[in-house]
This record gives sequence, C-alpha cells and structure tokens, in this order.
Amino acid sequence: MRALPWRSGGSYPPALMKYSLLFAPTLRDDPADAEVVSHKLLLRAGYIRRVTSGVYDYLPLGLMMLRKVEAIVREEMNRAGAQELLMPMVQPAELWQKSGRWEKYGRELLRFADRHDHESCLGPTHEEVICDLVSRELRSYRQLPLNLYQIQGKFRDEVRPRFGLMRGREFVMKDAYSFHETEEDLRREYRNMYDTYCRIFSRLGLKFRAVEADTGSIGGKSSHEFHVLADSGEDLIAHCQSCDYAANVEMAESRRSSPVFADAPLYEVATPGITAADAVAAALGLPVAALVKTMLYRVVGGTHDGEIVAVCMRGGDQVQEVKLQRQLGATGVALASEAEISAVGGIVGYVGPQGLRCLILADLSLRGAVGMVVGANRAGHHTTGFSFTRDLGAIEWADLRTASPGDHCPRCNGTIDLSRGIEVGHAFALGRAYSEPMGVAYQGRDGKREVAVMGCYGIGVSRLVAAIVEQCNDANGIAWPTHLAPFTVALIGIGKSEAAQAAVADLYAQLNAAGIATLFDDRNERPGVKFRDAELMGLPIHLVVGDRALERGMIEIKQRGGEASEVELTDALAVVRALIG
Amino acid sequence: MRALPWRSGGSYPPALMKYSLLFAPTLRDDPADAEVVSHKLLLRAGYIRRVTSGVYDYLPLGLMMLRKVEAIVREEMNRAGAQELLMPMVQPAELWQKSGRWEKYGRELLRFADRHDHESCLGPTHEEVICDLVSRELRSYRQLPLNLYQIQGKFRDEVRPRFGLMRGREFVMKDAYSFHETEEDLRREYRNMYDTYCRIFSRLGLKFRAVEADTGSIGGKSSHEFHVLADSGEDLIAHCQSCDYAANVEMAESRRSSPVFADAPLYEVATPGITAADAVAAALGLPVAALVKTMLYRVVGGTHDGEIVAVCMRGGDQVQEVKLQRQLGATGVALASEAEISAVGGIVGYVGPQGLRCLILADLSLRGAVGMVVGANRAGHHTTGFSFTRDLGAIEWADLRTASPGDHCPRCNGTIDLSRGIEVGHAFALGRAYSEPMGVAYQGRDGKREVAVMGCYGIGVSRLVAAIVEQCNDANGIAWPTHLAPFTVALIGIGKSEAAQAAVADLYAQLNAAGIATLFDDRNERPGVKFRDAELMGLPIHLVVGDRALERGMIEIKQRGGEASEVELTDALAVVRALIG
Repeated sequence: MRALPWRSGGSYPPALMKYSLLFAPTLRDDPADAEVVSHKLLLRAGYIRRVTSGVYDYLPLGLMMLRKVEAIVREEMNRAGAQELLMPMVQPAELWQKSGRWEKYGRELLRFADRHDHESCLGPTHEEVICDLVSRELRSYRQLPLNLYQIQGKFRDEVRPRFGLMRGREFVMKDAYSFHETEEDLRREYRNMYDTYCRIFSRLGLKFRAVEADTGSIGGKSSHEFHVLADSGEDLIAHCQSCDYAANVEMAESRRSSPVFADAPLYEVATPGITAADAVAAALGLPVAALVKTMLYRVVGGTHDGEIVAVCMRGGDQVQEVKLQRQLGATGVALASEAEISAVGGIVGYVGPQGLRCLILADLSLRGAVGMVVGANRAGHHTTGFSFTRDLGAIEWADLRTASPGDHCPRCNGTIDLSRGIEVGHAFALGRAYSEPMGVAYQGRDGKREVAVMGCYGIGVSRLVAAIVEQCNDANGIAWPTHLAPFTVALIGIGKSEAAQAAVADLYAQLNAAGIATLFDDRNERPGVKFRDAELMGLPIHLVVGDRALERGMIEIKQRGGEASEVELTDALAVVRALIG
Repeated sequence: MRALPWRSGGSYPPALMKYSLLFAPTLRDDPADAEVVSHKLLLRAGYIRRVTSGVYDYLPLGLMMLRKVEAIVREEMNRAGAQELLMPMVQPAELWQKSGRWEKYGRELLRFADRHDHESCLGPTHEEVICDLVSRELRSYRQLPLNLYQIQGKFRDEVRPRFGLMRGREFVMKDAYSFHETEEDLRREYRNMYDTYCRIFSRLGLKFRAVEADTGSIGGKSSHEFHVLADSGEDLIAHCQSCDYAANVEMAESRRSSPVFADAPLYEVATPGITAADAVAAALGLPVAALVKTMLYRVVGGTHDGEIVAVCMRGGDQVQEVKLQRQLGATGVALASEAEISAVGGIVGYVGPQGLRCLILADLSLRGAVGMVVGANRAGHHTTGFSFTRDLGAIEWADLRTASPGDHCPRCNGTIDLSRGIEVGHAFALGRAYSEPMGVAYQGRDGKREVAVMGCYGIGVSRLVAAIVEQCNDANGIAWPTHLAPFTVALIGIGKSEAAQAAVADLYAQLNAAGIATLFDDRNERPGVKFRDAELMGLPIHLVVGDRALERGMIEIKQRGGEASEVELTDALAVVRALIG
C-alpha cells in the first residue's frame, strides 16, 4: 500500500504533489465528440470528464483552475465594494410568477414539482431571489447603494449543450446585483463593474473586448457583453481598429458612404430568370453595389404585429434581423411567404420598392443613393436609374444592415473589423424592470416610497476556464500563463541511478520549501510519456533530472514549448525563481 | 452617495468592514417559525434568510461561517491524503438505475425530466457519479488506493424540512469516496477518516461522539455516525460514562444482569382486566422487573417475510425495532393485529410465550431469568414462577431492547447514559455494494479482474454551522469561539466628540494593519443597539470608544458575555492581541 498525498500539509490548492497520487488520467488521442480545442484539451489533459449532456465532473486539476479563476473574480469584486453571499440553486415558482418570467422564460428554465407538488425550478439566474431578499430587508435610502454577488452553480437546460465547459447546462457563474436610489448612481456602479470586469479579464491574461449588446431576455435598458476573442467563439463582434468601439454584430452600428451612380431616368430592363443581386449586376454590367435588394418580412409582436414590411438593402449587404426587430418594436420577424409577397403587390424574385402596399424601410447606407437598380415588381424585369428621394414617397430610414469588415466606425470613422468572441461576462442596467414587480421599495429622502433602480452583472466562471484554454494552447496541449497554471513546475525524474533519485527528491524538497507549486512525475513511465503529459497539462516550467547530465552536475530546464537548456543542479531553484519573476 | 466597502483591499473573507456597509439585517425578536436556538439566532443575527421550505440564502455573515467550516474540513481532508474534485448536482437516471437505487431510494430523491424528456435527479449523494467516473479511469491495482472528495451543494426533498440549517433540503456537504484493493486497506482508510473527522470536529471546538450506527439506505457493512451533543439533536445516543463507547440508540448494545427472583413452580393467577406490565406487577406485589412482556410482530421482507414472531422483553424495557429487524434479516416489522395474535394462539392483553405457535425471540437480559410473570394466553390470567430454561423449548436469544440510562457498557462495564445528538458526519465501509453493480473493476496483482472495495464519508458542512451555534450561545445571542467568529473584534464608537471620532478611526486603522478581522459599527444608532447587535452576532471582543473615558485616555474592552473593563487607548491593540492569544 502506498502513502496517500499531502500527508504532511493541508494547504489548498496543494502546493506539491506526486503524479502517482494525482487523479489526472490523460488521453493519448482527441476524444471523438469534442469539437473545440478547449473541450479536447481539458478532456485529454485530465481536467474534466463528462457525466451527461452538458454536465461535467471537475477532476482535481479542473477544480484547481476553477478555484484560481474564482479567486481572482472574488478578489476584484470585493475590491470593487461588492459583498458576497450565497443563494440556492432550487427556487420556488412563486418568485418567478411575481416577476412575470415563469411564463416568459423558455425551456432553458428547468421546472419541476417537489414531493409536495410545489412548483420549483433550477436557477439559471437569480434576479427573483435577490429581489425577494432585498425587498424584505430594505427600508431606507440610507441602506443604498448595495451590490451583492455570489459565485454559484447554475443550470440552464440548453437545447444543444456543446463545446465542453463553453456551453454546458450546469455551470459556475458569478452573478452580482446592485440596488440604487437613482439612475445616475446605477451608472456610477455600472462603470465600476465595467472597470472591475476589465481588471478581472486582464489579470486572467485574456484578449477581450467589451461590446455593446442587446439586452435579450433579462430585459432592461443598456447592456455590455465581455467577449474573449477566439476563433471558436459562438458570437460575432464588430470592433474598430482605431478606437475601443465594439459591439455584438446584432447591434453594431456601421457607416459607409452611400453609393452614387450616374443619375438617369427610370428604365425597365428585361432580366428573365435573373434574380440574385450579383447575377443581375453582372447581366447589366454594373457593380453589385448598384443593386438594391428588397426583402419582405412578416412582423411578430408590437404595434406592427401581423403586418408585412419591406426592407431595402444594398446588393451584397445582409439584413440584421435583430436591428429590424428593434426598429419595429417587434418580438420577431420572419421572411414573408409567396402569398404574402403577392398580397402587397410584390413579384417573387423581382420585388422592388415601387408600388408596394406596405411600410417600406431602407438601410441608412442607401440614403441619397442615385442611379440604382431595383426589382420592377413585374416578372423578369428590373428598373434602372432608381433614386430613393426622387422615385419613392415617405419611407423609414434606419440602420438595418449587418456591419461588415471595412465599414467605418460610428465613433471615430476608423475601420471596422469582425472577430469571433466567447461571451464571458455581461452587464445590464436593469432600471426598475425587476424591482418594480418584485416590490423592492424603500422610504426615500423625502419620506415617499421609492422603487430601487437595479443593475446586474454576470461572469461565466467555468466558461472562463475554457476561454483561457482557447487562447492559450498549441499543438502539444494547454499553455497556461505561469500565474494561472495548476502547478508551476513539472519535475521529471528520468535517471535510474541512485544519484539521480536522490537529486530529484532533493529538488522536490527545495521547491516545496520555496512554496513553488510542483508536480513531481514519479510514475514508472517512459520519459516520452512524462514529457508529453507535462506539455499536455500546460505546466510552464519543466525540470528533467537524467543520469548523464547529472554526472556533470547538470539538469535540464525548459519553458513549456521552448528549447531545453542545462543548468547546474545547485542553481536550479534560483533559475526557476527567476523564470517565475 | 456613500463609498462602497473594501475599496482598498481585495482579501477574502474581508478583514475589515464597516457595519453601515454590511448586509446583515438583525431582528429584535425571535422569528415565529424557528424552533431551535441555532435557527432563531442565525435568522436574528442576520446570517441566513429563508427562500422557501428548507432552502436558505446565506447572507455575507452566513457565507463567511460556511467558508470557515469548509476551510477546516478541506485542510484536514487534504492532510489525510484525499483529493478534492467537484461533481454535478444534476445526475442522469441511468447511473441510479445501474446501482439499483432509482427504484429503492424514496421520495427524498428529487426526480425530474429535462427538456428532452431525459430522466434526471438532484444529487442527494454521489456514489453513482463517482463510481461511474472511477470505473472509466481505473485500470490497474497500481492506481489504488484512491480517496476523492468534494464540498458541494446537495438536495434532499425532506418531507418535513425544519430547524433551519439543521435539516434543510438544499445544503452543503463534504462527501468523500475511497477505493481499495482489500477490506484490510479499506479498514486502514476508514480509521484514517475516523481520525480526520475527530480532528475536524475538535478544531471546530465541538463536543462530539463517534457512534456505531446502522448502515441505513446507503448500504454496506459497518458505519459510524459523528454526533454533536446538543439538546435539540434529533438522534438519541447511548454512550458510556467511563470509556469512549457510543452508539446510536437504534444500535447500542447494553448489558444488565438478568432478574432472578425466587424460584417457584408455575402458577396461574387471575388478573382480570389487568394487562399493563406495571399494573400486573402492582396487583401481584412484585417489581415491574419481574414481568415479561410478550409482543407479537409481523415481519416484512427477508426469509421470515409474512411470519408472526414473538419478542419477550422485561417489563419496563422497550423493544428496539431496528435491532429486531436486523436480527430477522427483515426490511421492516409491524405490530401484529388482533387476528394475527389469535392465529398463533395468543390472547390480546394476556400473551405469554408458552404455547405460542410461532418463532419466539427473547432479549438477552432475560437469559437465566427465574421466577418471572408471563401472560397465560388465557383471558384475564398471568402465570407466575416462570423460568425460560425450565418452561420453554428452544427460543432465539438476541439483544433486542433499547438501551437505557444505568445499563452497563458492553465494552468496559461502565454506566451507559443517553444524550441527544446532531448527526454531522457519517462513515460507511461499503465493501462492494456499489462498486460491483457499477463495475468499478481493475486488473489485480495476479492479472485477474477485481472489483474495488469502497468506503464513503460524509460531513454536513452547513449543518455544522448550526451545530456550533447549538453549542455556543447564551441568552444574548451566538457565542462563536474566537478562532471561528466572522469578525474577532466589534469596534463601537459611541462618542460624539471629535477626539472620539478620531480615536475610533485610528483604532480601526491599527486593527486593520494588524490583520485583525474587525467590524466597525459606524451606524447612526443608539449605543444600546450597537451593544446588542455585537452580542447577538457573537463577536468575541468588543471595544467601545466613548467621550468620558476617552478624556482620561481610556477605552472600554469586553469579552463577549463578560465584564467590561477600561484599558489605555494606547494599549488597546496589545490587549486585543493578548486576548486572541
């Protein structure tokens, strides 16, 4: 029987460990079901294991990483003046009925009945619970402002969980909720949290962008998402190359000068069987930018509910449906059917704005456009020489297109670029969207009842672990930044001599005494396996003690991914210290 | 607008805090629905708030206590060689079907279907998940032993949650699972965990007992419960006043010399209408110890399923049904109906062992008893002069009685006492009860497939917070041990002079610099309110800065619950340091 690890020290995370005593099973090959690099590597390097769809075990290494990220989030939240508490995962339906979300929230809210048939749910977020708590304790404006947060397990019943920790169903989140007397004080705290998030992601060594975002199902007034830039990201972000403007592509404003072609009278040309913008342009010998596409949509919700609307967009541009929806105050838009197109006077494939019996919206980039080509609303025909101002009555101008690379920045006129991002944080200025229905009220300065103004601020803690891996990896595995790695040093004994065994034991003791987190690979494995696993796990500094070098009093030192060099055994600790910095 | 707390420091838990910035609402009166002292005080002192039945918010003070207990548990588990990981709360039904508990576990297992109609549950314990994990990674005996633990939120749908954190539905538990090659190695680790638990509860300053226990629904071979002794405990524990023998009363062995009365021939006496043991004894002019009660039970499950059995017990003693059940290898026992009594030859109210047509068991304390009184199995009659050996054929002798105060200890013959206990820990030697059905197998030393031997070890972390309060409280509130209190010092400014304000600010800075966790009560409240809240919250050292004492260069210092005395302002820090020790 072997001794178990940590016999002589109880610190957490463990400062030192022998690999033979660490439950960190590695895999030689990429698991078949893992698509993105963080999912593959966290599985292969023994950080996580799947329990069921979107639900994972954090093995000891995975938990160390979760705790490291948590600690940085906690430290910065505390520094920013927020107070940590802990709310439950199981929540009663009554609270969600009070806020109105029991009906509104989709199937991601996992609902169930307990043994007394009491309807409950697993908390995907905690606005209801925190409002219920604060509403019962808040009496006076003197108790405000208040910023309460927790780091806690959440559950969202995603329809298609994927990418490992990136879009799981059970995950760890930091969620903070702030309460204020005024919108102005909310803006102050919102900025405070914004700055705090920037500090957190910077400390984690991440390339990130704070982007303007749609408020989505949480509701409220304004909102920022924090995205880690990575090719595997599920979101598309438009950001300026010159200033710090960035926005989710669903929201991103972008500018472009309107296309102006030679002014000409209207002229109907035959374009039989030619309907796609680029094909029409080619047939007419014009650039695609001279084309105006006219798309018909059916509106869902809002004051235009059930109506058909037309959207004019330059050839080659895409309608951004989230923008269209917001412009119409709708809850959804859907492309019109053939019957609906005919009903407002359009001809499928040849729809143009002229003569349509419906509301017409046009993208701002077309304002002042002259000499354009539009569908003629006559089968097999287009109209050239079209000018919006000359040839059409009142229409609605709006920013409706999807920003594209090369557009001008709405702030500084710099050049817009698109990147993929992983959403790791979100801040919402909620206003009174929750505090009003949940009754979070207090006696104000003038003695009257006031409803608190709220903000909420989330960080995907477990998702951050994956996001770091997405940014820090190479062909051989994870490449943790030195200050984040679960162990700073991989100590690898490959010598079989007594001298080598003694040297490695002595180094282990030295590193231990110096408080440098070290994984001592004492396994009875080939050197190649040990080197491979140290690379795969992402440990930053590798020390190798072999027989031949040791005869010369030397050992090998290598920074992960770099070249190996020899140092005197007696200098090893000092060199490691210098590398850690 | 006020500044928010911790602006200048990010440590956790916060070393210093102003009360005006702490979300710790106190209540003047006991909440109506709280029965036990820990529930009352944790609510009143602003540590917890109820969300729904058996589900609580941990406010900042409550979370600090949870984390303090967690830290001690974690440190000792790591020191003992266990490795921490983290498993999910949501578990798939398949795993529970594999272990056989999906059907067997009662309604405390909260089951639900997810959006894809996949049956799942909230984990009340994690044997299935850990076995599934280990079974997929375990290959060789070289990987054993292994002890994996987590500190994690659990859910048990208790039929009657009560007593606040003592019997909640959502709670925090430390659960460890060990895997071994042999029973012998399991016993070594079981002892290691036993010792670890004793260290943990000792470090928490608790009066506790490790007691032998029934294995209950977890299954397995042997089991210990760890009980904190407190009048509000839901369990009854028999323990020796001389040695460390202790056992749950359901299990406790106890000895007593058999009653020997004058030997006499059998004689039937009329006892019309007299059936209760003490009434019969009184009528015959004998002590109740001369009576033998004969109880008839119907057996459920096991080889005796459906049979009626008789149990003979001395007058004044109680049948311990859990012992009876174990003796019979049954899953349950129930008192027989009148029809069932008649069917085996008994007469209700006058049942005796003679002539019964069923298996007869008698409590060991009756072995060798002579000159006893038994029912005559004839209406209105008892038989005197009864001797088990002389007057009855073969019967089964077993320890079937509930231990009572004054019994002899089965180990040292000392005196047994009964106390109430709060179960805060549990260790089970599971053997192969889970590893066999879950397929936790490996290649053994001789190359053959072997099934791992298992142990599991739980600690109720959130319940421990309540248990500490049950032992540490007085009429004014909680009395935390100094090393556990959320803040060591309550700094109370009651002076209105500029000098007093300056002195209190200076003391706060001094305590801060010394790293002494201090709650500075800067609220605009009457001194009485501040004193009351410091006592209620259980802060160990109170410093009071008032105008009059300060004119003499003095401040007041008090240990919670003790007498106030004056110290020189300039000595205050040194005195606090000395008190902390």
